[in-house]
Amino acid sequence: MQSVQTISFPEPQLLAALSPLPGGLRGVVWDMKEAPGEAHGNIDGVILPYIDASAVLGSLAQVKDLKFVQTQSTGFDGVPEAAGPSAAVANASGVHAAATAELAVGLILAKLRGIDQAVRDQQTQAWAPQRRQSLADRRVLLLGVGGIGRELARRLAPFEVTLTRVGSTARTDDDGRVHSSKDLIALARDHDILVSVLPLSDSTHHLVGADVLAALPDGALVVNVGRGAVVDADALTREVVSGRLQCALDVMDPEPLPKGHPLWGTDNALITPHVGGNASAFEPRILKLLKQQLAALAEGRTPANLVQQGRI
Amino acid sequence: MQSVQTISFPEPQLLAALSPLPGGLRGVVWDMKEAPGEAHGNIDGVILPYIDASAVLGSLAQVKDLKFVQTQSTGFDGVPEAAGPSAAVANASGVHAAATAELAVGLILAKLRGIDQAVRDQQTQAWAPQRRQSLADRRVLLLGVGGIGRELARRLAPFEVTLTRVGSTARTDDDGRVHSSKDLIALARDHDILVSVLPLSDSTHHLVGADVLAALPDGALVVNVGRGAVVDADALTREVVSGRLQCALDVMDPEPLPKGHPLWGTDNALITPHVGGNASAFEPRILKLLKQQLAALAEGRTPANLVQQGRI
Repeated sequence: MQSVQTISFPEPQLLAALSPLPGGLRGVVWDMKEAPGEAHGNIDGVILPYIDASAVLGSLAQVKDLKFVQTQSTGFDGVPEAAGPSAAVANASGVHAAATAELAVGLILAKLRGIDQAVRDQQTQAWAPQRRQSLADRRVLLLGVGGIGRELARRLAPFEVTLTRVGSTARTDDDGRVHSSKDLIALARDHDILVSVLPLSDSTHHLVGADVLAALPDGALVVNVGRGAVVDADALTREVVSGRLQCALDVMDPEPLPKGHPLWGTDNALITPHVGGNASAFEPRILKLLKQQLAALAEGRTPANLVQQGRI
Repeated sequence: MQSVQTISFPEPQLLAALSPLPGGLRGVVWDMKEAPGEAHGNIDGVILPYIDASAVLGSLAQVKDLKFVQTQSTGFDGVPEAAGPSAAVANASGVHAAATAELAVGLILAKLRGIDQAVRDQQTQAWAPQRRQSLADRRVLLLGVGGIGRELARRLAPFEVTLTRVGSTARTDDDGRVHSSKDLIALARDHDILVSVLPLSDSTHHLVGADVLAALPDGALVVNVGRGAVVDADALTREVVSGRLQCALDVMDPEPLPKGHPLWGTDNALITPHVGGNASAFEPRILKLLKQQLAALAEGRTPANLVQQGRI
């Protein structure tokens, strides 16, 4: 990778937490809401904001000699295109795995065990016990075997579930068998919970479509903590509003979920506002990653987590 | 144990699911809401109902030659007293461990990650992301190292927590160090989450009192899925209503939580209506246990899980 001289940070706190920067590297604060000014100097590396990065991605086109872009999220949809083919792009793989995987477990347990209903009952002071599905004995279909998928599989292992993992292609990895996403419809028939941690790409867009959803048994639970558009939102909404399926979603398509969307008012749906990685686990883990990345840049080594190589 | 001839089942479905009973054993249906009648014959063994057993415990005094009582719950507070000293009493240890331990994880994750707030936000169609405490990096103080405690420890292990276990006495078991409950106040100071799975006894009553609660750091989370009166409810209510602590409780003192109780209306409190063991995991596991117990009774062997020996 070409050597980076001046790297921008989306907020001063982040620059302060990482200062002093390793030898030779200059840090500036740029929130990307407008073009970089005179004072910024010649920015050639950019750390994107964590929240709402997609809203400011267009500003990358204003950086003349862009060599390196670092996301603070695992997902990087749209970033290589906005950065252009000559810039290297690294994501924050690993940083969000713990927080996102634990939220997935929380959503599954909350929906299955009726914690969402208990919150509503609390508002009317109603003590209303009901027998519920336990996570124990459930058959879980996990879509995604990357960092978050691995952390989620580890966390689900002690819960007495049957776990089936699905990746892009059939293979065997350190944790056992991985099924191909081509077999998703057949697999869906025999599972009570489908949980996706997949990133968005051409091959994952609407991977969980009407046909996969229709194949799930009555009462099955669909969980998404990856990217919203991996699931066909219209098809899922129909199945959930009709009462046939239930869902627990941290990510939507579109996002935020628009006012008046039928999922808002459906008790079968549990909705969290894309907070999978937005937890205290984030800060120590992103600082650790950025420290390593800045050291690599300063020493002329290739940074970790490259999702686009750029001009090497 | 004296040999049992006629054992009562609280509902016909349970008797049907276990029929035919093993050789020599006669089964009758008795809901315990009134004294056993002529048709019941000489009941000398009783299976208690799972739900609201405490409301009908008084009926045990009507059984003349009571030899054996089987609970369907792990907790058995009040049962030996109601059965009298000559009857053997067995609990359902193990049956509820999976369901109760998973609910504890669900309550912890729901409260920490704001799933309860998300349910309230859903009602106003508000998409309101907030950074929350993750379970990762938290210091968890687990009170109870029996069956449920062991299952909860296993389930928490992959979540990147620091787990400290507390039992009645300091010792070392297969899973490592167990601290004495005498050290609870000192231990509370260094923990973010206190979770109790303890049964109720003279030595656990109000074990988590005002002093232990006061020692917890600001913002700490108190979780109870064991028995309500292990925690001093008034002291906890004060700390939660003031905003200093948060809680997620499946068990209360008294139960049900009375209308108008301040915890109902406090967002810092998440309340589920004693459903720890009330999940689909229950049925296959209770049937398995009862089958084993009935076989033991029929063959004149001592049943498992005795919490009172009776007249041997």
